[in-house]
Amino acid sequence: MKIGVFGASGYTGLELLRLLIRHPKAEVVFATSRRFAGQPVYAAHPSLINLTDLKFLDASATEVAQSAEVVFLALPHGISMEIAPTFHKAGRKVIDLSADFRLADLAVYEKWYGRHKAPDMIADAIYGIPELWRDQIKGARFIANPGCYPTSVILGLAPLLATDWIDRSSIVVDSKSGTSGAGREPQMGSLFCEVDEGFKAYKIGGQHRHIPEMEQALTKLTGESLTISFTPHLLPVSRGILSTIYVNMIRPIKVDDLLVAYEKFYQHEAFVRVYPKGLSPNLLCIRGTNYCDIGLAVDIRTNRAIIVSAIDNLVKGAAGQAIQNMNLICGLPEETGLELVPLFP
Amino acid sequence: MKIGVFGASGYTGLELLRLLIRHPKAEVVFATSRRFAGQPVYAAHPSLINLTDLKFLDASATEVAQSAEVVFLALPHGISMEIAPTFHKAGRKVIDLSADFRLADLAVYEKWYGRHKAPDMIADAIYGIPELWRDQIKGARFIANPGCYPTSVILGLAPLLATDWIDRSSIVVDSKSGTSGAGREPQMGSLFCEVDEGFKAYKIGGQHRHIPEMEQALTKLTGESLTISFTPHLLPVSRGILSTIYVNMIRPIKVDDLLVAYEKFYQHEAFVRVYPKGLSPNLLCIRGTNYCDIGLAVDIRTNRAIIVSAIDNLVKGAAGQAIQNMNLICGLPEETGLELVPLFP
Amino acid sequence: MKIGVFGASGYTGLELLRLLIRHPKAEVVFATSRRFAGQPVYAAHPSLINLTDLKFLDASATEVAQSAEVVFLALPHGISMEIAPTFHKAGRKVIDLSADFRLADLAVYEKWYGRHKAPDMIADAIYGIPELWRDQIKGARFIANPGCYPTSVILGLAPLLATDWIDRSSIVVDSKSGTSGAGREPQMGSLFCEVDEGFKAYKIGGQHRHIPEMEQALTKLTGESLTISFTPHLLPVSRGILSTIYVNMIRPIKVDDLLVAYEKFYQHEAFVRVYPKGLSPNLLCIRGTNYCDIGLAVDIRTNRAIIVSAIDNLVKGAAGQAIQNMNLICGLPEETGLELVPLFP
Amino acid sequence: MKIGVFGASGYTGLELLRLLIRHPKAEVVFATSRRFAGQPVYAAHPSLINLTDLKFLDASATEVAQSAEVVFLALPHGISMEIAPTFHKAGRKVIDLSADFRLADLAVYEKWYGRHKAPDMIADAIYGIPELWRDQIKGARFIANPGCYPTSVILGLAPLLATDWIDRSSIVVDSKSGTSGAGREPQMGSLFCEVDEGFKAYKIGGQHRHIPEMEQALTKLTGESLTISFTPHLLPVSRGILSTIYVNMIRPIKVDDLLVAYEKFYQHEAFVRVYPKGLSPNLLCIRGTNYCDIGLAVDIRTNRAIIVSAIDNLVKGAAGQAIQNMNLICGLPEETGLELVPLFP
Repeated sequence: MKIGVFGASGYTGLELLRLLIRHPKAEVVFATSRRFAGQPVYAAHPSLINLTDLKFLDASATEVAQSAEVVFLALPHGISMEIAPTFHKAGRKVIDLSADFRLADLAVYEKWYGRHKAPDMIADAIYGIPELWRDQIKGARFIANPGCYPTSVILGLAPLLATDWIDRSSIVVDSKSGTSGAGREPQMGSLFCEVDEGFKAYKIGGQHRHIPEMEQALTKLTGESLTISFTPHLLPVSRGILSTIYVNMIRPIKVDDLLVAYEKFYQHEAFVRVYPKGLSPNLLCIRGTNYCDIGLAVDIRTNRAIIVSAIDNLVKGAAGQAIQNMNLICGLPEETGLELVPLFP
Repeated sequence: MKIGVFGASGYTGLELLRLLIRHPKAEVVFATSRRFAGQPVYAAHPSLINLTDLKFLDASATEVAQSAEVVFLALPHGISMEIAPTFHKAGRKVIDLSADFRLADLAVYEKWYGRHKAPDMIADAIYGIPELWRDQIKGARFIANPGCYPTSVILGLAPLLATDWIDRSSIVVDSKSGTSGAGREPQMGSLFCEVDEGFKAYKIGGQHRHIPEMEQALTKLTGESLTISFTPHLLPVSRGILSTIYVNMIRPIKVDDLLVAYEKFYQHEAFVRVYPKGLSPNLLCIRGTNYCDIGLAVDIRTNRAIIVSAIDNLVKGAAGQAIQNMNLICGLPEETGLELVPLFP
Repeated sequence: MKIGVFGASGYTGLELLRLLIRHPKAEVVFATSRRFAGQPVYAAHPSLINLTDLKFLDASATEVAQSAEVVFLALPHGISMEIAPTFHKAGRKVIDLSADFRLADLAVYEKWYGRHKAPDMIADAIYGIPELWRDQIKGARFIANPGCYPTSVILGLAPLLATDWIDRSSIVVDSKSGTSGAGREPQMGSLFCEVDEGFKAYKIGGQHRHIPEMEQALTKLTGESLTISFTPHLLPVSRGILSTIYVNMIRPIKVDDLLVAYEKFYQHEAFVRVYPKGLSPNLLCIRGTNYCDIGLAVDIRTNRAIIVSAIDNLVKGAAGQAIQNMNLICGLPEETGLELVPLFP
Repeated sequence: MKIGVFGASGYTGLELLRLLIRHPKAEVVFATSRRFAGQPVYAAHPSLINLTDLKFLDASATEVAQSAEVVFLALPHGISMEIAPTFHKAGRKVIDLSADFRLADLAVYEKWYGRHKAPDMIADAIYGIPELWRDQIKGARFIANPGCYPTSVILGLAPLLATDWIDRSSIVVDSKSGTSGAGREPQMGSLFCEVDEGFKAYKIGGQHRHIPEMEQALTKLTGESLTISFTPHLLPVSRGILSTIYVNMIRPIKVDDLLVAYEKFYQHEAFVRVYPKGLSPNLLCIRGTNYCDIGLAVDIRTNRAIIVSAIDNLVKGAAGQAIQNMNLICGLPEETGLELVPLFP
């Protein structure tokens, strides 16, 4: 399969290249970058020296328009919606890693992100978390690849939302993300000296744009409108998101019950690892992989369930899940090219 | 004032030495260490080369028994209670940085920590958060210096608990600590390669020993029995604790109301910095200092207040607060020796 | 091929497991650990949850003696020499990752490491850097896998030593290693808080045990006795060794000449990447892979060549090179299971 | 003393503010920043909330022209030379932390940095390393504050250059710097994800602009023209420079001789700590302080002396040394405001 990658000089673009270079059924035929157009890929990504001979193209290059069967858009929101329609209309498979087509409700999108330039295409997009909506994805040819925070939160909550054990108005999500989530664009807040040895919350008080995306998915799972408290934090690590989720139980559930429910829910999933009692996910244990690791506990003193969910934001939270979706829509085994072992330490 | 430091070869001991070396009214006359007894202080703490000529003594050395007016115990729980009575009975001022005398209820202590060897002394101990119980501390000569997590949580919640705005059964505390909180004893989980690029929760589900300490203080502040959910996490930084606290509001309070309440509550406090609206604490901004920085937000969508509280676990969470208490019980200005400026970056 | 791994609970052992789990021709049939014997592998390596069902065995277990065709010894020096003879005599292929059989001269070994318990086997060991001694390795069944520092230094110097451009008495090697090189045994110097934000040299003045190993290899390459200055440093990263090597030129060589010489020397090597002029290796660019990246410069002001060589100490410096050697002695394509793409960031 | 700080929103500016806020004889009366002009200092430096009420001024503000007795220029090279003349001519004391007036030879400056706009002032500048040229500094009113790498290298070599033990043509300097040395200007190479877990050399082969500054100082110390090999590296830490220096001995000197020579040379210096035999400097041991720590070794196998020198690049390598110079030119005790204890961990 011939693959094109838009926005290939950023971290998500690099991660797509890292995975596609070793994907047995994929061949990257072009990679675009405004900043590095005309230069070899290793100019932006020295780690790929000798691993690819590609040169970056400008997004408007004519080679770009024709050659790829599947196109990944690793572009900022607002830009994806300018590129996606061309390929979608031309019948190519498009996997958009931006936020542009994740929100089904145009009004919600425009409230959080600003004006949408391709509103007609929103209805065509399938929100791509395979563990929850695999059947829809299989038949799709336009995927809205989920956000990183939402992936960790939605997978962490889905099995619990399938029960009648909880007060659904009580969900509190405290998430912590590595710095690659902020992208590769130079800005003061992402400098090494601003992040190293630091830790902070940001967009406190329900301000983060991933909130409507999470609530849309949780609402879809339950059939009722859900609202959550969500606070993101910036971790001094390069990769990974760990979400700690608090939910009030409305009946006395034991941790063993939780475990059984989660294990059953995810029993056929290759990329979700439900931890044995007493073990707790660690970003080091999923680094570089497409896993979502989940740990469970019950605080019997306060009658709350605590779910800890960990993903690599660049893999399961972006490029890995995008390739998982590609495999599905192209009829390949879902794990193709994603049989990764965590890099610890 | 002549000062003795027990357990001076660990991180808390080092931090006491760092601060006392420059304290204008204090002179460290002995420092003990079992492991380094007989060796110069720089053998354990090369950063202090040329800054002190002290040698470590064994805790049983005769010089130890007599020379100090104030004694700091930077020892593990279970050991402090063996040392404290001697000095307390001899009329010395004792500041215990362990957990041994923090819990007023013997049964609670023994449930969480095991058998207590000096139960008679518990009633003599004053729990030392000056911002909340300054008057009691001033008259004391035996201080139970608070734990690191509790200091960040109690200072973060106290102003809100003084209002009738909240549902006190709804408190969820998500705390993140730097690795120095695990101490200097070699153990696999504290190795660089186990922590670096990692992040995890631990003691999930109401298992951490600091919970009864927090609940005791919150109960003392409100006069009613309080229970909280508390989850600690391990951060890949050396210093600092940041607690994100979620509380349900029972009336529609604005963030400006919160700010006014907090600013008023702490208006005379040198070591609490309430942040302007929109700013959020960062561990880098309190590093090396005795500050507790507090940021506030309200999530109007879910009607929750979010309080973010940040301290340096080795300073306001241990050695700095201990010296603040020493200043108080010795009649010195509270800020003496603690006029520290954060080390950023 | 059935594989056994001794010492599988340390970082090198984990790295062997990480790579062998995905090796298409290998199956790990046992993994030993004194400390974790009887426990599942994920007890020591939670990153491998769901990736293996193995339990650790004790090294003396009977299953161990019989089942494996190839045995990796990821044990401390002094212990390997107790285990290796049994398997060697039984005709198994043995790849020893310790220092026990790297030094051909018994007297040199005993000077730097202490008494040798299997001196008769030393002559049977083949020193395993495939890029330099591939033919010897192919026919071997007992490999002394090179040390991490030596691998980076020997590969960095070999092409230059093949010329007559340099003063061979002038070699200065300044190496910097990530902390995983210190192993997983708990010790104060490897704690996160002792390493993070720190940097130091150690064993300064020709004290490091890898010096005789390097000099033996350099002498073998040149046919004349060579002595080098070598200073190791401890980096606050988990993985990687970068060596900066200074050599006096005895004739006016240009950087382009150097480049041509290095490119030619390594033209058929899959795991050595000689960088274009002006680019310089970075530990991030080889992380998790079996590459040795080499950058070259000439300081015309002082007439010195500067070679920068970077490897992942756990891969090309240990487990990866061991598997490369295994592939060779088992008649597999050398890159099997080692087609790794660097994890950046 | 009234103090002005130009370029106060960068890391060096912040470090000046950090130290001057607690300097007993200094009062910062203005701080300039183009980017943050008009905003409170805490907008750029949230760590200074509540510690100063200053607002940033634009460099052209009229308050700036008149109010300060001492002016620090923490500006990029090329900009300092535009500002310095005004204040110098007005009789103010000027301490320039840029490179603009460090090189006495205009031609050398212009070769490495480009055109100089105030060549007439070069002769007025005194190069400010107090340990070596204290008497000149005392009488000065215009200080060229040394670069960070040069400070570590010059202090590391000065005692050895005062002997006749070495081959002065053999000096190799391998230096490693924390990331704050790259400044606070957003650029891709300084992003957290580009530096974290990475390590690399840069400007290899005698390309770094600090080389002429070092050679000028070493030549001044010896009276003969000296050339050195110098390779800088980028460390994943925020602060600190550690230089490992290799020198060929021309006679058999022991490490004890070296120690005696260094201890004697620096016996009256408050800010140089020569380490006992066997101990080696660590960036953690000088963090946040004005110390230069020096460790010594001799490699008897190769007849080389190895000197390891460590400073905090923002303190002894910039702001701290600048204040040390200020103290000298203002007749204050040299250590005033600089009695700092390292922050470890």
